[in-house]
Amino acid sequence: MIETVRVIGRGRVGSAIAGRLAQRGVELVDGTADVVLLCVPDAAIRDVAGGLAPGPAWIGHVSGATPLSALAPHTRRFSLHPLQTFTRSRGAEQLDGAFAAVSGETPEALAVATELARTLGLEPFELADDRRPLYHAGAAVASNYLVTLYRIAAGLLEEAGAPPEALVPLMRRTIENGFELTGPIARGDWTTVEAHLEAIRAARPEVEPVYQVLAEATRP
Amino acid sequence: MIETVRVIGRGRVGSAIAGRLAQRGVELVDGTADVVLLCVPDAAIRDVAGGLAPGPAWIGHVSGATPLSALAPHTRRFSLHPLQTFTRSRGAEQLDGAFAAVSGETPEALAVATELARTLGLEPFELADDRRPLYHAGAAVASNYLVTLYRIAAGLLEEAGAPPEALVPLMRRTIENGFELTGPIARGDWTTVEAHLEAIRAARPEVEPVYQVLAEATRP
Repeated sequence: MIETVRVIGRGRVGSAIAGRLAQRGVELVDGTADVVLLCVPDAAIRDVAGGLAPGPAWIGHVSGATPLSALAPHTRRFSLHPLQTFTRSRGAEQLDGAFAAVSGETPEALAVATELARTLGLEPFELADDRRPLYHAGAAVASNYLVTLYRIAAGLLEEAGAPPEALVPLMRRTIENGFELTGPIARGDWTTVEAHLEAIRAARPEVEPVYQVLAEATRP
Repeated sequence: MIETVRVIGRGRVGSAIAGRLAQRGVELVDGTADVVLLCVPDAAIRDVAGGLAPGPAWIGHVSGATPLSALAPHTRRFSLHPLQTFTRSRGAEQLDGAFAAVSGETPEALAVATELARTLGLEPFELADDRRPLYHAGAAVASNYLVTLYRIAAGLLEEAGAPPEALVPLMRRTIENGFELTGPIARGDWTTVEAHLEAIRAARPEVEPVYQVLAEATRP
């Protein structure tokens, strides 16, 4: 039973996590705690972990791609990565409905990570430590490159004199419809694909490589 | 005032449109009508339009990239493209909240297209006929390539032993957060980007070109 947590780092993720723990009645402490949770930048995890005296407490990090070994010399360690994008303008409610990848080297470590995930309101799934970079690459493709797609599409609409915000209901519905593919490539309509490419070459040539590589990846 | 519409074609879009018109009390007819609306595949628009006797009625198509000239020899013509993805398992409610690109060569044509869009429950915006392919390319990037992104990301998660459906709350929130970029590229964390690439090369080498071209497009 996790009663006290020391959260180190109050960035986007650390703030949301600390806020949620407080809401759940878990005591946030600065010293000895049941769990020390590092919510620091990935590159700082090794240094911060190395600077903490080993003790009976559990230590965890919330990074997506960082291995558990970054928490050395500590051995009672785990990772809990909330699979969500966080903004500074929102609070603990950002955790609601998100999944969390939990990793640990022992059943006990996984149990601690799982309990913490549930306390935070996250839906945990177990992830092997060595699959973490692959998993995190998938998360980045899904979230970060979604931003890139929107920016590119919005640029094309602006160039065409159309309002970019008109893309939002389209993109929401694409998700709601379970990512069912519609449009020219789904119909095998290469004439329209060629018309897109011609228009892109004329107006936004820098977009052509993205359009092409994604067309290739979309082909059945 | 549009009182009668002849909808030609009952595919995904034609079915939703006909259903909505009926809900709004517009009479669906097979012969002479205030508006003839072609909801046929893009490649069939010229033939179907060419086979209809010119008359006092308005004629329109619902294609994204097809020019108005495809409606020749008719001159009282317009285009109304619902900026939405449609599935066969849903009905007229799919039009709710979507935008529509309307094009016409006269104020009267634009007025007809705008009235029809509003009757359908769509939010119309005007689009120049010659910008239509560029606009439609943007729509395809936003919707069709969103499907591709999800498939790629889901494949990486599966390969990592993680549940692909865990990506859905992440992708929804990315949209809700106004496409705010987070993650390694936003942080300038190229070590993590390199770890992603290494993992992708080992497990799903076919994904590398997509990851690379999108990383390049995402860089500030």
